[in-house]
Amino acid sequence: MKKFINSPDSVLRDALIGVAAAHPSLRIDSDGRVVTRAAATPPGKVALISGGGSGHEPLHGGFVGTGMLDAACPGEVFTSPVPDQMLAAAGTVDSGSGVVFIVKNYTGDVMNFQLAAELAADVGITVETVLVDDDVAVKDSTWTAGRRGTGATVFVEKIAGALAEQGAPIKEVAELGRQVNAASRSFAIALTSCTTPAAGRPGFVLPDDEIEIGVGIHGEPGRRRGKIRPAAELADAMVEAILADMPLSAGDKTIVMLNGLGATPLIELYVLFGEVAARLSEQGVIIARSLVGNYVTSLDMAGASLTVCHADERMLALWDAPVNTPALRWGV
Amino acid sequence: MKKFINSPDSVLRDALIGVAAAHPSLRIDSDGRVVTRAAATPPGKVALISGGGSGHEPLHGGFVGTGMLDAACPGEVFTSPVPDQMLAAAGTVDSGSGVVFIVKNYTGDVMNFQLAAELAADVGITVETVLVDDDVAVKDSTWTAGRRGTGATVFVEKIAGALAEQGAPIKEVAELGRQVNAASRSFAIALTSCTTPAAGRPGFVLPDDEIEIGVGIHGEPGRRRGKIRPAAELADAMVEAILADMPLSAGDKTIVMLNGLGATPLIELYVLFGEVAARLSEQGVIIARSLVGNYVTSLDMAGASLTVCHADERMLALWDAPVNTPALRWGV
Repeated sequence: MKKFINSPDSVLRDALIGVAAAHPSLRIDSDGRVVTRAAATPPGKVALISGGGSGHEPLHGGFVGTGMLDAACPGEVFTSPVPDQMLAAAGTVDSGSGVVFIVKNYTGDVMNFQLAAELAADVGITVETVLVDDDVAVKDSTWTAGRRGTGATVFVEKIAGALAEQGAPIKEVAELGRQVNAASRSFAIALTSCTTPAAGRPGFVLPDDEIEIGVGIHGEPGRRRGKIRPAAELADAMVEAILADMPLSAGDKTIVMLNGLGATPLIELYVLFGEVAARLSEQGVIIARSLVGNYVTSLDMAGASLTVCHADERMLALWDAPVNTPALRWGV
Repeated sequence: MKKFINSPDSVLRDALIGVAAAHPSLRIDSDGRVVTRAAATPPGKVALISGGGSGHEPLHGGFVGTGMLDAACPGEVFTSPVPDQMLAAAGTVDSGSGVVFIVKNYTGDVMNFQLAAELAADVGITVETVLVDDDVAVKDSTWTAGRRGTGATVFVEKIAGALAEQGAPIKEVAELGRQVNAASRSFAIALTSCTTPAAGRPGFVLPDDEIEIGVGIHGEPGRRRGKIRPAAELADAMVEAILADMPLSAGDKTIVMLNGLGATPLIELYVLFGEVAARLSEQGVIIARSLVGNYVTSLDMAGASLTVCHADERMLALWDAPVNTPALRWGV
């Protein structure tokens, strides 16, 4: 295993020290493993907290900042954060208007955020939870009951975060987050496995000409393996999987994210995005906004995920609202 | 070879179609292979043009937009663009105030930009050239006479681009670009090789426990190979190589980019950046601004480059000026 680490045991702590050095707009508790904005939550503002296993950077710490998250709780690589992290984060960022937990649907995450919500309620903090479960590849999988939560997390955090910044009450922020999740679908294809620092070897092995279709963001198996094919055909498969689950009509507006899983060159993501855009255009579907790049990664996995949100005008306006985080920044 | 491509021959063209679909703020001539801003150059504004082989994305097309480049000319993967591309770009973006060519120091690039400058002069376009040669690893290398041009290109394009946006005359814009290059140094370490679509196999092979120290952005050999070591020791080696060539004193302000070469997980870049920041801090050197992420890549190479610019207050102020490109965006 060749990685830029000091030891497999210290990866998260060492990375948080680097995040602190790079981003003065964030406050990092590297012992408690909580990332918050450096500025306190303004009175009346609902706070958004997310978290999950590390190894998916920039998710979630890279989305902390004005217009998006108030706090992120990173677990060890591919391991859920513990309830104490979310409880500490809630205590730090709650202004009295409550906190919204944004939780990717993995069994460990769901359980630990649920425990944290109960502990927070015990100390008088109002908590609403938004569950993200956008991956259409499989119904239940290695680490989930129900669908996995992946790329739609970025859309939920951005759009609900913008509404919270406007001072909306907690029920409304959480409800919009649920609407964004309900309007979003994802599907991923892996060309290679990934290697966690602790394991030191790939989680699975794909032959030189095979890909994993419908892979999860921890390398969990997808629908099937198949031969590598031209980008146009892979784009077909991704778009078809999503539209089969969420039909779209001509004139529908979407936010589309073509996300690299960590080791995919940007030039390849653009090739694939061009094909995705062509498929959607054939259906008359409008790509109103897009992201192409690495946003929800799986360490050093080569591959890509496609996330499509069927967005209404309110969602689009909130998407465009100012955001100032390490990984998404505009309007400020 | 497993890549998201349709065929090795169509990678650049297909990628440009994707760039066009993703970024309405750009205008893409996918036949002529020129990326420009969708908006015409305002009268009186000097235009900045860069370019080079593809495979380094987001460089250069990802840096076209307000506050940075006016045009980018992508060659085939790891192959210089041809003079006709730069001539066409100059004809498109020159407002009458002249164009500045920003050229990474590779023999093919230098020759082709020089030819383009002569052709442009023939049709009455004023051209100044800024050569970027920041890589301290080797004096001459596979593709260069003199030092290679790498990460400092981002600093030159951003800072000179901001000055051009303010309406400065061409001599001043070019002179500042040269100053930024002179104040910048880079050094890179590769953990793996990269695979071009045309070759279909890695350009070189590194044993499972070896790294290339001082590697170039096309996988050109560096200073030596060595065993993989902890991130703290690799950061030492990178910082030492740069400071040996450009001594810095306590209190000096810098812009620091810790750049992923394509396949390096962001969590590892943060681990390495934390160590780099600690080394610089021990010397009293101030990291006034920083970038951590993939900005000048080598396809799917795992590795990282460190670029340090010894910045004066003018450079810092221009760094902070608004920029609106696919890969760098703030203040707008």
